[in-house]
Amino acid sequence: MTRVVTLGEIMLRLSPPGFERLLQSPMLSATFGGAEANVAVSLAHFGLESVYLTCVPAHAVGQAAIGALAREGVRTDFICRRGERLGIYFAEAGASQRPSTVIYDRARSSFSESVAGAFNWAEVFTQARWFHVSGVTPALGPGAAQATAAALRAAKEAGATVSLDLNYRHTLWTEAEAQAAMRPLLAHVDLVIGNEEDLQRVLGLAITGVDIQRVSVEFGPRLVAVTLRESVSASDNGWSAVLWNAQTSTFTESQRYSVRIVDRIGAGDSFAAGLIYGLIAGKSPDAALRFAVAASALKQTIPGDFNRVSVAEVEQLAAGNASGRVQR
Amino acid sequence: MTRVVTLGEIMLRLSPPGFERLLQSPMLSATFGGAEANVAVSLAHFGLESVYLTCVPAHAVGQAAIGALAREGVRTDFICRRGERLGIYFAEAGASQRPSTVIYDRARSSFSESVAGAFNWAEVFTQARWFHVSGVTPALGPGAAQATAAALRAAKEAGATVSLDLNYRHTLWTEAEAQAAMRPLLAHVDLVIGNEEDLQRVLGLAITGVDIQRVSVEFGPRLVAVTLRESVSASDNGWSAVLWNAQTSTFTESQRYSVRIVDRIGAGDSFAAGLIYGLIAGKSPDAALRFAVAASALKQTIPGDFNRVSVAEVEQLAAGNASGRVQR
Amino acid sequence: MTRVVTLGEIMLRLSPPGFERLLQSPMLSATFGGAEANVAVSLAHFGLESVYLTCVPAHAVGQAAIGALAREGVRTDFICRRGERLGIYFAEAGASQRPSTVIYDRARSSFSESVAGAFNWAEVFTQARWFHVSGVTPALGPGAAQATAAALRAAKEAGATVSLDLNYRHTLWTEAEAQAAMRPLLAHVDLVIGNEEDLQRVLGLAITGVDIQRVSVEFGPRLVAVTLRESVSASDNGWSAVLWNAQTSTFTESQRYSVRIVDRIGAGDSFAAGLIYGLIAGKSPDAALRFAVAASALKQTIPGDFNRVSVAEVEQLAAGNASGRVQR
Amino acid sequence: MTRVVTLGEIMLRLSPPGFERLLQSPMLSATFGGAEANVAVSLAHFGLESVYLTCVPAHAVGQAAIGALAREGVRTDFICRRGERLGIYFAEAGASQRPSTVIYDRARSSFSESVAGAFNWAEVFTQARWFHVSGVTPALGPGAAQATAAALRAAKEAGATVSLDLNYRHTLWTEAEAQAAMRPLLAHVDLVIGNEEDLQRVLGLAITGVDIQRVSVEFGPRLVAVTLRESVSASDNGWSAVLWNAQTSTFTESQRYSVRIVDRIGAGDSFAAGLIYGLIAGKSPDAALRFAVAASALKQTIPGDFNRVSVAEVEQLAAGNASGRVQR
Amino acid sequence: MTRVVTLGEIMLRLSPPGFERLLQSPMLSATFGGAEANVAVSLAHFGLESVYLTCVPAHAVGQAAIGALAREGVRTDFICRRGERLGIYFAEAGASQRPSTVIYDRARSSFSESVAGAFNWAEVFTQARWFHVSGVTPALGPGAAQATAAALRAAKEAGATVSLDLNYRHTLWTEAEAQAAMRPLLAHVDLVIGNEEDLQRVLGLAITGVDIQRVSVEFGPRLVAVTLRESVSASDNGWSAVLWNAQTSTFTESQRYSVRIVDRIGAGDSFAAGLIYGLIAGKSPDAALRFAVAASALKQTIPGDFNRVSVAEVEQLAAGNASGRVQR
Amino acid sequence: MTRVVTLGEIMLRLSPPGFERLLQSPMLSATFGGAEANVAVSLAHFGLESVYLTCVPAHAVGQAAIGALAREGVRTDFICRRGERLGIYFAEAGASQRPSTVIYDRARSSFSESVAGAFNWAEVFTQARWFHVSGVTPALGPGAAQATAAALRAAKEAGATVSLDLNYRHTLWTEAEAQAAMRPLLAHVDLVIGNEEDLQRVLGLAITGVDIQRVSVEFGPRLVAVTLRESVSASDNGWSAVLWNAQTSTFTESQRYSVRIVDRIGAGDSFAAGLIYGLIAGKSPDAALRFAVAASALKQTIPGDFNRVSVAEVEQLAAGNASGRVQR
Repeated sequence: MTRVVTLGEIMLRLSPPGFERLLQSPMLSATFGGAEANVAVSLAHFGLESVYLTCVPAHAVGQAAIGALAREGVRTDFICRRGERLGIYFAEAGASQRPSTVIYDRARSSFSESVAGAFNWAEVFTQARWFHVSGVTPALGPGAAQATAAALRAAKEAGATVSLDLNYRHTLWTEAEAQAAMRPLLAHVDLVIGNEEDLQRVLGLAITGVDIQRVSVEFGPRLVAVTLRESVSASDNGWSAVLWNAQTSTFTESQRYSVRIVDRIGAGDSFAAGLIYGLIAGKSPDAALRFAVAASALKQTIPGDFNRVSVAEVEQLAAGNASGRVQR
Repeated sequence: MTRVVTLGEIMLRLSPPGFERLLQSPMLSATFGGAEANVAVSLAHFGLESVYLTCVPAHAVGQAAIGALAREGVRTDFICRRGERLGIYFAEAGASQRPSTVIYDRARSSFSESVAGAFNWAEVFTQARWFHVSGVTPALGPGAAQATAAALRAAKEAGATVSLDLNYRHTLWTEAEAQAAMRPLLAHVDLVIGNEEDLQRVLGLAITGVDIQRVSVEFGPRLVAVTLRESVSASDNGWSAVLWNAQTSTFTESQRYSVRIVDRIGAGDSFAAGLIYGLIAGKSPDAALRFAVAASALKQTIPGDFNRVSVAEVEQLAAGNASGRVQR
Repeated sequence: MTRVVTLGEIMLRLSPPGFERLLQSPMLSATFGGAEANVAVSLAHFGLESVYLTCVPAHAVGQAAIGALAREGVRTDFICRRGERLGIYFAEAGASQRPSTVIYDRARSSFSESVAGAFNWAEVFTQARWFHVSGVTPALGPGAAQATAAALRAAKEAGATVSLDLNYRHTLWTEAEAQAAMRPLLAHVDLVIGNEEDLQRVLGLAITGVDIQRVSVEFGPRLVAVTLRESVSASDNGWSAVLWNAQTSTFTESQRYSVRIVDRIGAGDSFAAGLIYGLIAGKSPDAALRFAVAASALKQTIPGDFNRVSVAEVEQLAAGNASGRVQR
Repeated sequence: MTRVVTLGEIMLRLSPPGFERLLQSPMLSATFGGAEANVAVSLAHFGLESVYLTCVPAHAVGQAAIGALAREGVRTDFICRRGERLGIYFAEAGASQRPSTVIYDRARSSFSESVAGAFNWAEVFTQARWFHVSGVTPALGPGAAQATAAALRAAKEAGATVSLDLNYRHTLWTEAEAQAAMRPLLAHVDLVIGNEEDLQRVLGLAITGVDIQRVSVEFGPRLVAVTLRESVSASDNGWSAVLWNAQTSTFTESQRYSVRIVDRIGAGDSFAAGLIYGLIAGKSPDAALRFAVAASALKQTIPGDFNRVSVAEVEQLAAGNASGRVQR
Repeated sequence: MTRVVTLGEIMLRLSPPGFERLLQSPMLSATFGGAEANVAVSLAHFGLESVYLTCVPAHAVGQAAIGALAREGVRTDFICRRGERLGIYFAEAGASQRPSTVIYDRARSSFSESVAGAFNWAEVFTQARWFHVSGVTPALGPGAAQATAAALRAAKEAGATVSLDLNYRHTLWTEAEAQAAMRPLLAHVDLVIGNEEDLQRVLGLAITGVDIQRVSVEFGPRLVAVTLRESVSASDNGWSAVLWNAQTSTFTESQRYSVRIVDRIGAGDSFAAGLIYGLIAGKSPDAALRFAVAASALKQTIPGDFNRVSVAEVEQLAAGNASGRVQR
Repeated sequence: MTRVVTLGEIMLRLSPPGFERLLQSPMLSATFGGAEANVAVSLAHFGLESVYLTCVPAHAVGQAAIGALAREGVRTDFICRRGERLGIYFAEAGASQRPSTVIYDRARSSFSESVAGAFNWAEVFTQARWFHVSGVTPALGPGAAQATAAALRAAKEAGATVSLDLNYRHTLWTEAEAQAAMRPLLAHVDLVIGNEEDLQRVLGLAITGVDIQRVSVEFGPRLVAVTLRESVSASDNGWSAVLWNAQTSTFTESQRYSVRIVDRIGAGDSFAAGLIYGLIAGKSPDAALRFAVAASALKQTIPGDFNRVSVAEVEQLAAGNASGRVQR
């Protein structure tokens, strides 16, 4: 199996049932998620050896996070058990004109306080084919930023391909801080992923999808992918993406889906995972992008952060079967 | 804080889960609602001192109704505890071509049997800026009609602005009865609210939204607001409103939303509350109407009768942000 | 009351909550369904004497299946209690681009192993006005095929009208097997029902809705009804049907609904029941078809296999009221 | 099958989950129950032809009550659909030192307002072997009292055995009213059932179990059964009964169970049903009493009013196997 | 109404359903609790004017905490909205030999970081009859300790009676720290409450219940109450208490209950509230202690931290009715 | 880590909520279990490398079984994906005098039809320290019996210790069949485990716990453990065990627990796992037996088949702390 390594924070996600507002009822659905954890789960479902690196506290909540990942097929044996608490986020699903809302309670998490020095990078990256991280990870604090840099270096040394999802979070840092931290990282990155807002805020590039080659020119990555979300309402979104391949100077536009949203959290992560899988599987950029967009459209129909779909399911949609007919 | 007083019946609302038919599963969601109670809750969420007047039985179900209101910030200290039972209504959510259905079981409620003589109106209306009631209240019986009239008088004496939502209920009275009872009340009313059907049935005016000035001319209120619902299906509605200001002779048409319905019960009440808040907050008629329509669009995305939204959330939508993007 | 007899297998249906993937949460909704059982329930709701014939094991799961039918008003006193297990199917609801999926676990069921010889057909069909069966039943094995044939003969002998829903299931037999078994049965059938795929696979007719008179010409039934589903996505479907009456040489096209899908399983069965009811009630073919399409549109808004709607509800929709306004 | 007829009111029962207080969570379990309905369900589970007579409103809640009975095998075809509302009761389960509580909301029910004149008694009692009613029924109002008397007469005329559960409800009438109404009825009764409090309040007999022959002497019934509950706490009860047979002058004391209470509502009804079944089945008084006490002990381990147990399950316990070992 | 003021931290409590281990299912019940909040809720249920002082963040989780208190009748208008997060605790219910477990995640809460300087003590204590705080509050950090001391001073200045529940939490401080902080506070305290372990750890007194007068002698409070829990298992506990009144030199032993535990969290708080109420209500020490023990026995039969019982319910149990018979 | 291998069938377990009877509500809790799977999960929680061997179908239900095991830390990489269906069992929890009931629907499972030849035994047993299997496995059919024998041989060849839980299932085979199959296996077994009924039915030994040395003498295993359950009721059981060590001729009697049952299914499996762990960890027979009995007492307080407890939790109970006090 091909090994892909990801590094990041996993959080306990607490959501009210259905379309209720947060704590409207005294019941919360309790799942787990985090940008890179979501990528790791997708990749495990796609059949890769998905190694996820994080730190969780050595108590029942931390253990449950590990169990949730293991259940999806992620390799959890490198995860460190340290620190005091697992980050938490409250996610309320929007509908129609009412936006979804997220409240983060992740400060002082085990990951942000313990990840520096938690891993033997050389050991982790043995036989690794790919490394993926998002902009959330370095934003979590000095230790996390240091671990991100160390991981990027180790990945390159091990010959792994590196992908970075810009993933700007205004609750974690300012645009200036993000730019100062992220721009230098891009030199080590092969594939950069983001949406238009990310390009603006993290790279300072006021461009639309079609100009994405500028990312490559200015910052170095040979592959640049941008997801395009048209937010008609909290219930209905258009979803597509574009890809720039600087080596072949080809610009690819994906198919577009009108998605009836079930849960849009993790869409970008599932796109990243789809693209990584597609490229690892040797698909053409066009086919890999189709796969990534199909995978992430499916994600948005599944509750929770994780994209619980198989390669076969994604391929079927990517091949054009979007009719939703019953599969018996 | 500005005090607004409302008077009416609160009921236990029993609904099956999701889109199930009533009692398809042996489980009912149990919440509370009623036209004026819904207005009172909205106003409390908007930061006003919201005094709700009702009667409930002195047992656990009645107490739970009070608790439900208090939880939303409504002042419940004037509520009387009398009588035998709390009214109940069974509400089944429709979908697509299947309409929502409501079965009322409200006869002989504490409110209808005990409200006459339950309040010291002068005390209640001390410092009251506004009084709101709907056509449901006088329809609940002679005692309730008498209390409505007494409240209207006391409100005017205290210098409060008075709003009335016509709110016709064919299960409570005939059109003739409604007209006989409601038309005289309008003389004491500053703002009358209704939908086109209400205008027809309660006022006997066969008009469309654009002719609403006739309500003012014929019955006296200086402000007339009409909500306009386009029922594409039980799942999809258009939603907008118009407002006539007789003092300035201005007719205002609101923005229009295509709403993916989560729960449409209480939409009119949340509109009334939005308009009351907007006018109390000193907004222009146009801005107040925008606020009211935005507030009531949001209501229809939230389960239950109550509109659990803040001024900030409504303002954001009223300002044009209907994209439903995640708020982190 | 008019007696209608149906024969088939009822299964335990296990579904995850909401839009979750199967076993994403450790909770399954447990209901019952099966092609003819669904027809029987619809007919009972329409006020007919609905006699359902099946076999279930003599344990709590089998008894629960009987109870579920009895609760809906189906006559269950002919049901035999034999064999080892009730068939099971796992049904996961799709959304948007993600299709619904069904996993069958029905092999070796009480029905398939015990139905041959289980009934005294003459007794069952006393006073029966109609007999309905689907192509699933003979596909369940030699015993089931033999019972189907016996029932058809007994029905005709008793003077009952016979309807057959082609209902092709590729998991049960090949097209060749289906054609060999089903074509001869059509000689005894008055009304044949199917979708375009069924016509192709079971009858070998590559026709569209408008050519359905060929079914009558080639195979004998005087009435041929075809349902037409336009699968925009798993969430949105167009729904309509056509009917050919060979006796009057009239071709009828129904109204068309854009259905926001809640649960599409059982749509075809509810269509069949609607058509049977409409014809028994003496409606014109056009009115019966309208009724059937309205009934089956409503089905798709209700969770579970069963169409829990009354004649009055169907008539209201069939009469053109598709606005979904609240019924108080 | 042997026909047993019962007459009474069925109510919607609303209970909070687990040991929560009423409406602590916004969720209620919604089942159905009523003294004679509970007896009817038990008898249907024991394999008798159980005909239940009641009136329910012709709307979805009334229909659900009928469905709930039909599901358990009760014959519901005599039930009349009239009146406005189904009675409701809220039942909160106690634990340890906290008692269970019941709030009734049954005034003006369809049954109490419509039952007089609702049935053709002669038709109902054709082939009836037994008639059972409880003291709740005549307490529900003049119409209900009149129907009770008519039913008793018709039962005797049809040669049926008559049983009466005294079942005193202080919320429905005073002891004086109960005595005035119930004492005359006893002349038509073969088997009278009650607990010690019932004997005191309804018959005015301050006796303990051992003196129960006085009931027979003073009021006529040849069989007198008294249930004996030792309330250690809401969680733990002792449960046993005694039976006096005036014809044979034998006094029988049952086995005694220490019951860990799951739901004690309906215990007396399940005892009555057990005794009726035992006597119909030709058991000795001793064996019938054992069966009745075993049946009603099992009831108290099952949520809801209904005793969902088979004859085989009761026999196994009555035979002495109270170990609770897993039955595979 | 008599005003009682309490000061402390309220937390979001997350618990798995039933007896499941934490996060065994992806569902958590979400309620609120905290030592003084629990006392405040009890007192509100007992009809006192219960003013609760705390700080919560100005987001939906903080607002939900306020709503939860308001629903129970607590006055929440003094609560400050500041800081970043609400403390959380995960509580898993034990059973039989398996202990309940609690994981705290309360560091850096709004309360601990913002309470210093949050209140105008003079205003708060106007007309206050009683002030209650527990040892948890000063343990939460320097700001919280400072606020505790300020509140105690202001309470005494306002002439309020002061009660202190020792409530030792080893996760918050060492015994040495606790003793250094708590011993000086006792000089301002009228009533001190604790269990035997608290006396040992917080006061350094290795005494059993019967020697509790030493607390009074050594530290000053005129009333000393000690709760006595006999932990047979997580499911079964003995529960009683003793009270020393130094003014009258009387030692009172309470009744004892064998409690079948539903939820033991908050038992001590409900005892404190019962004792405060009893003393305010002018009961004798003996009667007040009986009331407190009865109230806290009832608490242990109710899920959640809050003791949702009325004075009437407690009086009924205190009067000796522990049979748990159904209250209709 | 020490590797322990187990071989058996894992099933989908479907249970009604709380103490409801099966399918009383349309909801089933869906978990997984099986004798050896339960042992494997316990061992993983105890920190061993727990390799579980089974076959599941290659569809979502099979995959969910694998996920459930992986989540608990079991190594699932040897599991084969073959065949048509996963076995199912319906488990209804009893209470008080009502026994728990189990309905099996496991015929034709992937395991029973595919396990023969599914594994490369030599590879599996590399570095294996222990092998465990129960009498259920060979009872599942010829293929399963053949696999059991092959595994036992391979285990012995690899030098692993072998344990066998007799685990008689009358639904799978007769006593004669069990004896014929199982007696020869015992020659390869180091540790045999059973209850008194198993000894009787599988070995034909009518002995009580104290004579268990006869098992060793007659059949060879050097260690014989017998669990002793006193079934007071379905809610209350005594639980203890005895151990015979033939090498040291020592007979050990364990501590005894009065267990308030939450879920007794899997108690024997958790005992086996506790004993295996204790022996592997080098505990004395006495300490290992204490550990096993404590572990299995805890199991009976946890819903589901799996014993989700850590070594530390078991040690705490085994050390004598059975008070159930809250662990903060």
